[in-house]
Amino acid sequence: MSGPDPAVAATRVAVRRVLAAAGPGSAPVLVACSGGADSLALLTATLFEARDAPWRVVGVTVDHGLHDTSAEVATQVVGQMAALGADETASIRVSVEGAGQGLEAAARQARYAVLEELAERYAAGVVLLGHTRDDQAETVLLGLARGSGARSLAGMRREFGVFRRPLLDLTRAQTEQACRAQGIEWWDDPANDDPRFTRSRVRHTVLPLLESELGPGVAATLARTADLLRADVELLDELARSSYSALDGRLAVEALTALAPALRTRVLRLAAVSAGARDAELFLEHVRALDALLTDWHGQGPVDLPGHVRGLRRDGVLVFERA
Amino acid sequence: MSGPDPAVAATRVAVRRVLAAAGPGSAPVLVACSGGADSLALLTATLFEARDAPWRVVGVTVDHGLHDTSAEVATQVVGQMAALGADETASIRVSVEGAGQGLEAAARQARYAVLEELAERYAAGVVLLGHTRDDQAETVLLGLARGSGARSLAGMRREFGVFRRPLLDLTRAQTEQACRAQGIEWWDDPANDDPRFTRSRVRHTVLPLLESELGPGVAATLARTADLLRADVELLDELARSSYSALDGRLAVEALTALAPALRTRVLRLAAVSAGARDAELFLEHVRALDALLTDWHGQGPVDLPGHVRGLRRDGVLVFERA
Repeated sequence: MSGPDPAVAATRVAVRRVLAAAGPGSAPVLVACSGGADSLALLTATLFEARDAPWRVVGVTVDHGLHDTSAEVATQVVGQMAALGADETASIRVSVEGAGQGLEAAARQARYAVLEELAERYAAGVVLLGHTRDDQAETVLLGLARGSGARSLAGMRREFGVFRRPLLDLTRAQTEQACRAQGIEWWDDPANDDPRFTRSRVRHTVLPLLESELGPGVAATLARTADLLRADVELLDELARSSYSALDGRLAVEALTALAPALRTRVLRLAAVSAGARDAELFLEHVRALDALLTDWHGQGPVDLPGHVRGLRRDGVLVFERA
Repeated sequence: MSGPDPAVAATRVAVRRVLAAAGPGSAPVLVACSGGADSLALLTATLFEARDAPWRVVGVTVDHGLHDTSAEVATQVVGQMAALGADETASIRVSVEGAGQGLEAAARQARYAVLEELAERYAAGVVLLGHTRDDQAETVLLGLARGSGARSLAGMRREFGVFRRPLLDLTRAQTEQACRAQGIEWWDDPANDDPRFTRSRVRHTVLPLLESELGPGVAATLARTADLLRADVELLDELARSSYSALDGRLAVEALTALAPALRTRVLRLAAVSAGARDAELFLEHVRALDALLTDWHGQGPVDLPGHVRGLRRDGVLVFERA
């Protein structure tokens, strides 16, 4: 008796673990599906694992309206999800604005927001996302290019909020093989091959070169790095949150300089955001300028922060004001 | 009145800061000099900064005997250091064995050991090393390929023991320009262009591609990442050391599993090394296998570690034994 194709088996095991950890109480399960090999492999594995379980499976596709045929693709994906056996399907259109990497970020944000809304509407405890180890490696390299430290190198989380990423230890090739073995045709998003997108250049040029120059297995290595750094970041962020609340809103220079640099810079970020600075636009330079008010003080003026907030030092205390 | 070439000025400012922080009490100063542009720029800047100060400058070159002409190069570097005005010069030969990356690591280790010995002999408080921001970026990429987390991505330290790296914020091009502006000819180590060395491939192939695909300034971004991660690593290592000593030698599973993963894995490494495992050969897989004895316990056997040590779980306690 021969079992399923190894790639199919791998997708099933991965989904089984995530569903078991989530527990039947969080049914139904939403599966985000772009029509690509990764998300179709995810959907079929979920349908298989849910066959004898109380999990109703809702396939969801998000149409970002970013290309001419996006509505057509969405319709096709809905049909494919239904044909594969999804209990319910949903297609939802979001509008996205921006350009280049800004566009990618805006699309991602809109997608997660709408998936969260749908999870609530369906009372679903988990939303499965099809990201693979290759996506993770690309994310780490993109984070490396941003240079904002561990946070941007820690890649994608295995879970956050209602979201779960069961396929994060599988390769993209495994998801393609899982589709082929099950006779599933997938859709290749042309954006993935569009060299105007940094992620596409990372996928098609940077990673292959790293594989050839630094040795095979670079994608796995990058994913492992992300796992390690994520554990570091989680602890450091937690320590920073408790240091920050221990300060009780009073940012005395003496108390802040007593903190280790890794904590102090994180506390400064928390303080700035809590004063109204915009987290996503608060760059390393801002945090460093705030830190200089503490550690390199020579009477310098206020530090302007995104969100019309400024930080300044007054009588041995760091304060934030509306700018 | 025109001042010195900006690149020359930059090397001087960088050296001035390091000497000021070290204080005159740590004179004389040793400068490690390979004959390359970086270390010659470092030496001349040090000689300039030391001109009115109590700093005697000792130029040191280490001959690794790795190529046919290495003795010749060493002699030439000694002559050049003396001609530039070094108060004393020293040339010292070390023997290095190994191959590929192992050879690079062995050469580095031998170099630092001999420089430390010389620092003691000359009663020097500081030894200056000529590494630039480009070297730092290369080190981060090499660390990325190892995949052992923050520690391997944190790059080279600005200072450790007697060693200081004043040029870590300067580019290699700046050191070359500083040499040109001062009429100094430098020696290009052929090993830097030898594609058998991973570092050379990183320098000549990987970094240029990253610059073109991810945007200019990647070297600076990588160096910034290293700075941020180093601050994280220093704190996490310190926390791990105090968690480990709080355990007082008794590695109760309950106490270990109560630690955050980022601490627990570090504590396991400390415990293994203190039990006699060889630090440099203790890889992530070893630490993960030890961790599984705590967090994924299903009666598995001992974990063999490099250095003839093994870790096992016995009656709710992790113990190490000679293997």
